[in-house]
Amino acid sequence: MLYSQMNKKELNDCLEKLNKEYCEVKAKGLRLDMSRGKPSSDQLSLSADMLKTVSEDSDCFSDKGTDCRNYGLLEGLPEARKLFADILGVEAENVLVGGASSLNIMYDEVARAMMFGVAGGDKPWSKQGKIKFLCPVPGYDRHFAICELMGIEMINVAMTKDGPDMDTVEKLVSEDESIKGIWCVPKYANPDGTVYSDETVRRFAALRPKAKDFRIFWDNAYAVHDLYEEVKLANIFSLAKQYGSEDMPIIFTSTSKITYAGAGLAAMAASKANIEKTKKSLGIQTIGYDKINQLRHVKYFADANAVKEHMKKHAKILRPKFETVLRAFEEELRPLGIADWSSPKGGYFISLNVEKGCAKRVYTLAKEAGVTLTPAGAPYPYGTDQNDENLRIAPSFPPVKELEEAVEVLCLCVKIAAAEKYLGLM
Amino acid sequence: MLYSQMNKKELNDCLEKLNKEYCEVKAKGLRLDMSRGKPSSDQLSLSADMLKTVSEDSDCFSDKGTDCRNYGLLEGLPEARKLFADILGVEAENVLVGGASSLNIMYDEVARAMMFGVAGGDKPWSKQGKIKFLCPVPGYDRHFAICELMGIEMINVAMTKDGPDMDTVEKLVSEDESIKGIWCVPKYANPDGTVYSDETVRRFAALRPKAKDFRIFWDNAYAVHDLYEEVKLANIFSLAKQYGSEDMPIIFTSTSKITYAGAGLAAMAASKANIEKTKKSLGIQTIGYDKINQLRHVKYFADANAVKEHMKKHAKILRPKFETVLRAFEEELRPLGIADWSSPKGGYFISLNVEKGCAKRVYTLAKEAGVTLTPAGAPYPYGTDQNDENLRIAPSFPPVKELEEAVEVLCLCVKIAAAEKYLGLM
Repeated sequence: MLYSQMNKKELNDCLEKLNKEYCEVKAKGLRLDMSRGKPSSDQLSLSADMLKTVSEDSDCFSDKGTDCRNYGLLEGLPEARKLFADILGVEAENVLVGGASSLNIMYDEVARAMMFGVAGGDKPWSKQGKIKFLCPVPGYDRHFAICELMGIEMINVAMTKDGPDMDTVEKLVSEDESIKGIWCVPKYANPDGTVYSDETVRRFAALRPKAKDFRIFWDNAYAVHDLYEEVKLANIFSLAKQYGSEDMPIIFTSTSKITYAGAGLAAMAASKANIEKTKKSLGIQTIGYDKINQLRHVKYFADANAVKEHMKKHAKILRPKFETVLRAFEEELRPLGIADWSSPKGGYFISLNVEKGCAKRVYTLAKEAGVTLTPAGAPYPYGTDQNDENLRIAPSFPPVKELEEAVEVLCLCVKIAAAEKYLGLM
Repeated sequence: MLYSQMNKKELNDCLEKLNKEYCEVKAKGLRLDMSRGKPSSDQLSLSADMLKTVSEDSDCFSDKGTDCRNYGLLEGLPEARKLFADILGVEAENVLVGGASSLNIMYDEVARAMMFGVAGGDKPWSKQGKIKFLCPVPGYDRHFAICELMGIEMINVAMTKDGPDMDTVEKLVSEDESIKGIWCVPKYANPDGTVYSDETVRRFAALRPKAKDFRIFWDNAYAVHDLYEEVKLANIFSLAKQYGSEDMPIIFTSTSKITYAGAGLAAMAASKANIEKTKKSLGIQTIGYDKINQLRHVKYFADANAVKEHMKKHAKILRPKFETVLRAFEEELRPLGIADWSSPKGGYFISLNVEKGCAKRVYTLAKEAGVTLTPAGAPYPYGTDQNDENLRIAPSFPPVKELEEAVEVLCLCVKIAAAEKYLGLM
């Protein structure tokens, strides 16, 4: 029966029963975590053989004869650039391979733009007064944290089932020269799992921003992270070329959720002008990134197809976890009409919308019952979810059994908060 | 016979003979390189067994049980922090372990100070108008390149046999609030190999800069890179504590010339306040650096003593190379009185001073004869050696036989340039 159709007495009885259950759960002293998008130990073990690819001196040389133990190759090993190029659908010359963290590359790109400006830009962003970024919401908290740290004002843009609301994006960037960028996770968006439609990607490529130094930060973190069949994302880089806006998108990706979250590779892809501009300061910043780890990756993955095959093994581990969460939501929450959620076909997150004004309450209830969730509001700039309704669920890390237990607690908390709301108790 | 005692006829005869030799050398079509401080292949092979330390899943866990394959530990693996702490003579809590490049950490520290200011500072450096760094010269070109990129004005300070001229350093920093930093390579300074005396280090710790946000960038790149017996550098961090200036020094080091130049570890050490300030933005910049590579290092080096033992093997390879260069200088140049040079007991470079106004000429002559040197002027801010006399010699990379050939060509070029100068031909 829907909560909205219950009378006060029925809701009160409901809440009493739920609170009793909650007390029992609390007594168990659980310690479960659905807070961050970390691969599980099983997933990490999939790449164990990569560790064996470089185990002696003679393994340290690339096919082209580069001694990966020594200095050099600022742009990354050519073979590694090629691998990422094939994953992203660009040319190797458009790729820079970095260290282990794509977040670090994104931060560095924003910092460079702040300090030195972008290719073709007149002035550093930091010398242009107040500047702004568009932030599709809900989105990735760490993107927003970069803006907040750098003092870049963030403007929320709603997500639709096809990606960010492009009418709003087009309008804002064409009118406001102080808007210098937008954060996008175009495939299996963090946290709702949306894949940008072809039309959305095309409209991004066709943007005509008022700011000549506007950039699209295209964080393709889940480029090959399909849970079911392969889902194709339109190629923003080739579309941008067609529209003559090749310098607009900067693409990021990593192997954090392909090989090792703590020891993978990250890369960026961009136009020749952007790459040259980046290299100008990157060459002052470092002599080069860890090439032996780049070599491990290219020895382990012969090509992009090998990566895709590898991702099927990840999917096999992750699918039951996503399905566990979604099944529980379907069984426990759907009949009550007190929540809705995304059903992603890949990526690392499920986005759960509870009753308006209840997300923080659910977070707290879950926490006190020993289940850690990503803090309510985290997927919004400044941590502020105006509706206080969104929770980001990360099912990847716990084993299925723990996840079953955790999601049961979560559903209980969602019900309690909703009942409290309907009863006017909060 | 000293050139200074030769008459014109004698010098002319000399030059004619030298030019004939030079033509013969040129005809050989040599391709030799003494330009950068790269470890040789033999040296890199010393660490081959490190590659075997992590070759399967069960190797990926630290003693404390951390799964190094996954996210986490922004500050670095505790065991790696301890290893660097012992090398640098600080506590593990004062150490952050980064990626493969200490240059990258230095760049990031300067960039952070520019954008966000330093611990206890009022404003970001970039919001304080023109700011300046002191640059002991000759010094490390990549340090100076960071300042140039960031628009930080550089002021030369002369090197003495005990380190930078401290009278000048003390005077300048106490008078000028716009001076925010100084670059130091305190042990086996790049390029002259000077080890800062205990008194110099003490005077650094005792500095009372007018700028409260002044920092000493203490690049201890060659902390354990002794060619002969171990040379001790005074501990600036504990001295600074005594003088109540604990926040002033920021120490950097790496294993680039211990394990792999292209796949080592870098670290910084600083006061708690500095570390906390850095972590605030570092935690936005990345989730963490490559922990598996950190684990490889701590598995391979049980402790700092193991590192020192390892460095003896490097010394054995490097010593004959340094001695080859110094012997040639002694035999070829000393009798003519046309150059002087440093005789370092460690590090990676020899500093050669030729006749004033001749360094560029020597560089060009050598280049045309197939011997690549670091460009004349490189060890000076803005690439400008006022006296045009200094050349940085890097003997580490070429095999001894090649080095013998290269240094012979170099000496020939030094003689030609000197003869030309004495004859008034340049």
